[in-house]
Amino acid sequence: MKRFSRPSLEAYYQGVINSDRVMLSRAITLIESKRPEDQALAAQLLDSILPHTGNSLRIGITGVPGVGKSTFIESIGSKITEKHQLAVLSIDPTSSLNKGSILGDKTRMQNLSLNPKAYIRPSPSGKSLGGVAQKTRETILLCEAAGYDVIIVETVGVGQSETAVNNMVDFFLLLMLAGGGDELQGIKRGIMEMADALVINKADGQNIKAAKMAKKAYQNALHLFPPHGANWTVPVTTSSAIENNGTDHIWDLIKEFQNKSLSSGYLKHNRVNQNLKWMNDMIMERLEQEFFNNPMNSAKISELREQVKTGELSVRHAVDQIFN
Amino acid sequence: MKRFSRPSLEAYYQGVINSDRVMLSRAITLIESKRPEDQALAAQLLDSILPHTGNSLRIGITGVPGVGKSTFIESIGSKITEKHQLAVLSIDPTSSLNKGSILGDKTRMQNLSLNPKAYIRPSPSGKSLGGVAQKTRETILLCEAAGYDVIIVETVGVGQSETAVNNMVDFFLLLMLAGGGDELQGIKRGIMEMADALVINKADGQNIKAAKMAKKAYQNALHLFPPHGANWTVPVTTSSAIENNGTDHIWDLIKEFQNKSLSSGYLKHNRVNQNLKWMNDMIMERLEQEFFNNPMNSAKISELREQVKTGELSVRHAVDQIFN
Repeated sequence: MKRFSRPSLEAYYQGVINSDRVMLSRAITLIESKRPEDQALAAQLLDSILPHTGNSLRIGITGVPGVGKSTFIESIGSKITEKHQLAVLSIDPTSSLNKGSILGDKTRMQNLSLNPKAYIRPSPSGKSLGGVAQKTRETILLCEAAGYDVIIVETVGVGQSETAVNNMVDFFLLLMLAGGGDELQGIKRGIMEMADALVINKADGQNIKAAKMAKKAYQNALHLFPPHGANWTVPVTTSSAIENNGTDHIWDLIKEFQNKSLSSGYLKHNRVNQNLKWMNDMIMERLEQEFFNNPMNSAKISELREQVKTGELSVRHAVDQIFN
Repeated sequence: MKRFSRPSLEAYYQGVINSDRVMLSRAITLIESKRPEDQALAAQLLDSILPHTGNSLRIGITGVPGVGKSTFIESIGSKITEKHQLAVLSIDPTSSLNKGSILGDKTRMQNLSLNPKAYIRPSPSGKSLGGVAQKTRETILLCEAAGYDVIIVETVGVGQSETAVNNMVDFFLLLMLAGGGDELQGIKRGIMEMADALVINKADGQNIKAAKMAKKAYQNALHLFPPHGANWTVPVTTSSAIENNGTDHIWDLIKEFQNKSLSSGYLKHNRVNQNLKWMNDMIMERLEQEFFNNPMNSAKISELREQVKTGELSVRHAVDQIFN
């Protein structure tokens, strides 16, 4: 296969800030690349576009499989693109295993994928959630530099991916189904208290009554839970993406949050904290990689881990053996 | 001041497993010591007592200041000591700053501190929560080896201390006040979904009605939240430690959880996971320490952090500069 030569830094930069979709896609591929020469160029590109970033509203969306994320994003996306340029990214740490979302993202969102004001990018592949999250954060920056002023990051809720997404967005929305039994099995504890809004999805047909009751119940419940950092009352609302119902209202809520948290300074403050946390996480991930990439270390640790498991060895002694 | 010589490993070991309170206290002081020769001895001692550990029920208790933790622990403690040996430990990462809890623990719990079946140990001091948490985990092991079969670890809820405590106990209890407004301010989001039981405290006098209403409301709310990993319905109950009311029932609930999770295997499974997580956390903390103890690294990072804050430098480039 013929090898394409990489564009220059200037070509990438111009392409991205002039909203050239092909160049944006190639720039994202560049930052996802593991080749050392690509990584150096990627770091330069990210620095150069930095003054053009930060101007979007970053929205995270999560919910268990089957909750209707794609249809919901299609519906709210068509509303958003009336006035905005929308990028839809996903975090799916399992995608490198089954290649599911890589093929699936565009077919899952057929209308948006044909919408000239929307840009859909599947989940980057990668072994670690940290690596996948880093690429998604950098993709947010590239999309912002390319003029996308609303960015949706969706996640399927595997491992710690909700926390990762929550740490990179301004507004975090949890999609749920009415019920509260089996439907809740997939939601991890702690995620609900992280959400900036709860949406009971599929509030259509036979489900309407149950969805309305669930809405009321969650509203009452959330009053009892610790307050939001931004002095924000977490709204609970219903949506039927199929009947194109409710997403306009949800978009209004998100904009209300944006206005409030922009004027209070919360949004900026939150983003600075997110960046510093991101930096710390990356430092720790690099330290961890360097350490575990040493085959002696990883062999030793596996062995010690077994001894800790069976109770032969104290954790302190195990760790001392690694570092002494 | 005259320097005491340290007892031998054998003397520590015999003292601990023979429930000699003085030697137990000295052993805890040994594991808290930062002197290298003490640390080597501490690791040996921990290995040697390991076969005598794991036989307690480990209970975590948290709640905002003013919720009545001490009085609650006094009350449930007197019930527990009818049939058990009880150790009460605390995690308070701020104690090294104000020395508050170091002086305070025994005066806070006057009855328990006079009870021969109870052993109270104040929070270890330390700069990092990781260090404080490690010492508390090791103190749990020493207390178990000394025959304490119920261990309470309480925390004031500073920083991430609730998560740290949750990661070292079998049962995590959140004390709350009726109300839901200002009383909730101190509870961090995500903690409620972590709890194995909610207790509305100070359900006495004028408060009884409000506490009963709060109980009902939280019960309804918790039904809507994700299910507990151990197939356990998180109970909500009221307590008046002053009127010595409710703590017997709470102790019954905790024992019920213990029986269920012992027979299902959840308790053992959870402890193995906690140990492996603890080991990983300690490895990461050591890597971090070694890295930041290098003054070049910490100076460089402070400088880069400022550039990331102001948006001059991308996070990736900052991290690359540290590692290249």
